Amino acid sequence: MYPNDGFRELGRQECLRLLAKVPVGRVVHTRKALPAVLPVNFCLDGDGAVLLCTSAASELARAIDGAVVAFEADEVDAVQHAGWSVVVIGSAAVVTDPSEYGRLIRTGPHSWVPSPDEIFVRIKPELVTGRELIGGRSTYGVGLLP
Amino acid sequence: MYPNDGFRELGRQECLRLLAKVPVGRVVHTRKALPAVLPVNFCLDGDGAVLLCTSAASELARAIDGAVVAFEADEVDAVQHAGWSVVVIGSAAVVTDPSEYGRLIRTGPHSWVPSPDEIFVRIKPELVTGRELIGGRSTYGVGLLP
Repeated sequence: MYPNDGFRELGRQECLRLLAKVPVGRVVHTRKALPAVLPVNFCLDGDGAVLLCTSAASELARAIDGAVVAFEADEVDAVQHAGWSVVVIGSAAVVTDPSEYGRLIRTGPHSWVPSPDEIFVRIKPELVTGRELIGGRSTYGVGLLP
Repeated sequence: MYPNDGFRELGRQECLRLLAKVPVGRVVHTRKALPAVLPVNFCLDGDGAVLLCTSAASELARAIDGAVVAFEADEVDAVQHAGWSVVVIGSAAVVTDPSEYGRLIRTGPHSWVPSPDEIFVRIKPELVTGRELIGGRSTYGVGLLP
């Protein structure tokens, strides 16, 4: 977050409430020493962790397993110049615990392209920040373009 | 991009055509050694460069001036499981040439929250990649969750 740029900063619970409203966010990681961004569908776990479902053969899973990543979601109305953006930063890890895997098979996200070898990736919500724009004059407008 | 994960890769011109359709994307950079993601409105220059307009006092401008960043935009239909995502990777630089600045004042993007000290940031389209999902069964679905 950028201090003193006038946006309205959102609290952690407000951020998680907004995240729960949208089906798709973006995983930001590093690939071949370059920034990489990939939209993914997701759901939130009870503790606010971001849960992704992918294939065990996924290059994304290999790229982010054990790494600190950012997960961003937003809703922006370009006409009203209003919206919000939330970023979760934390370590990503493939779920390996069998009982946890079983729970997520029942309650977790499902890949838009189901595969026979689905795995889950959990992004720990170690840092949860967000900002809001209200009608262009807000702070999020400044946040959008500080 | 992740090879062999089955998504439909988009060509550079197709990527730029899609980018031109949307008003907002996300600047991905590094801040305090952590990934940072900030939604911004933008426009494309004739050469496919991403143009942002911000305040000279902007922490964003200071954070990305001279750095290699990613700029991502997408449109995803979560019901149809369809959409696209485009990522531009390149060096970002504050526009300092007076004639270029004058041109962008006339033709460039405008901040949603105008400031008296607007500057422009250009992101060179050094690497432009994109992927598409068509109705969930596509490759972009796999691209979403390889």
